[in-house]
Amino acid sequence: MAVSNVKLLGNRPSPFVNRVRFALNLKSVDYEFMLENPSEGKSELLLKSNPIHKKIPVLIHKDKPICESLVIVQYIDETWSDGPSILPTDPYDRSIARFWAAYMDDKLVPLLRSLADATDEESKAAVLEKTTGDLALLEDVFLKCSNGKGFFGGDTLGYLDIALGCYLGWIITIQIEINKKFLDETKTPALVEWAERFKSHEAVKGTLPETEELLPLLMMRKAAAAAAAQSSEPSD
Amino acid sequence: MAVSNVKLLGNRPSPFVNRVRFALNLKSVDYEFMLENPSEGKSELLLKSNPIHKKIPVLIHKDKPICESLVIVQYIDETWSDGPSILPTDPYDRSIARFWAAYMDDKLVPLLRSLADATDEESKAAVLEKTTGDLALLEDVFLKCSNGKGFFGGDTLGYLDIALGCYLGWIITIQIEINKKFLDETKTPALVEWAERFKSHEAVKGTLPETEELLPLLMMRKAAAAAAAQSSEPSD
Repeated sequence: MAVSNVKLLGNRPSPFVNRVRFALNLKSVDYEFMLENPSEGKSELLLKSNPIHKKIPVLIHKDKPICESLVIVQYIDETWSDGPSILPTDPYDRSIARFWAAYMDDKLVPLLRSLADATDEESKAAVLEKTTGDLALLEDVFLKCSNGKGFFGGDTLGYLDIALGCYLGWIITIQIEINKKFLDETKTPALVEWAERFKSHEAVKGTLPETEELLPLLMMRKAAAAAAAQSSEPSD
Repeated sequence: MAVSNVKLLGNRPSPFVNRVRFALNLKSVDYEFMLENPSEGKSELLLKSNPIHKKIPVLIHKDKPICESLVIVQYIDETWSDGPSILPTDPYDRSIARFWAAYMDDKLVPLLRSLADATDEESKAAVLEKTTGDLALLEDVFLKCSNGKGFFGGDTLGYLDIALGCYLGWIITIQIEINKKFLDETKTPALVEWAERFKSHEAVKGTLPETEELLPLLMMRKAAAAAAAQSSEPSD
């Protein structure tokens, strides 16, 4: 695989970009990582490649752009089909994987965003309770899907591992910042063990961003959210 | 295929349920249509089969439930794989189909809902403009995907035909009710011809609900939206 055949527009902190990177790593696909730096605005190539959403990640394969992280991961699975399978092979198992991956994006991500942005203790506590419930639900999903094995995908890292695992860096960083845990040994023991296994997987380590990298970004996001909340409050 | 093997929980007006019915029809799968009547509350079977979202459609195949319409359509395509293909076979074309199907649900549906609920002329005009722009965009998508043929899927009805076509009954009914067109011969000539082709397809006719069935439901929805808007206005 020539490097120039596969380009990925993205950046290191984005969980959606990291999904694509884990999938490419898993399939041993070489690719050119083209950094989109938010402070420099969006590149011409990004705007041209994803004119609808104008968002990273965009995978460009043989000059054709593919957008939306879960769509890209399925594309990678179907295109480099001789590598390890990402989606399960059984149609029912595939439907379960697709259902829960969508759930993670639709339900878990807004909770994580709210936790990251929460500026007062009361709203933080309410979101924390919901997030804790959500992770407990995902613990059950893991126990059912993994069937006593190490990953959502069974013996090997698969679609749901990638779908949830991409958030791990942010989950850990948010937990440190708010000084509360929703992914922990008591409430979600299986997911805690899974997280360690995921982080040390060949396709993941070195790609999943560390807390030192994410914490300053989280603090900047929090400061912006606090400033926005303050400016929208009625003045006395 | 024994009828008892395949059950579909749903109702006639739901576009999401109709997606699944079109896919089952296309694959010539016999199924038991188990009506969920909103006035009677949700059935025990629905609550047990889709405990997360508690929504129709749910396909039950060999006693296993599958939820979320686009997930179900992909399940049907993969399970009855000897029938006509619903998704394209080429991975890139599949990614394009998945991207635009998600777009229709994420972007078009909220616009249709807003149009259905709009209670004043000013907000109606703003949403109408956006919807018209959206349909014009989908006209372009149709021209690219269909490649001079009759359907998004080319010569045969496929994933994007099902994904968009399920809304046709509601689009036509909303247009009649607001007395304005966003799917019309001038702005979206190719989609207008596609819509006629789609409605008369064997897998669709008799399943897509008619305006006479949807208009009373739309009026009820509108009345409820108007009542809600009135009750949320500050009293003098």
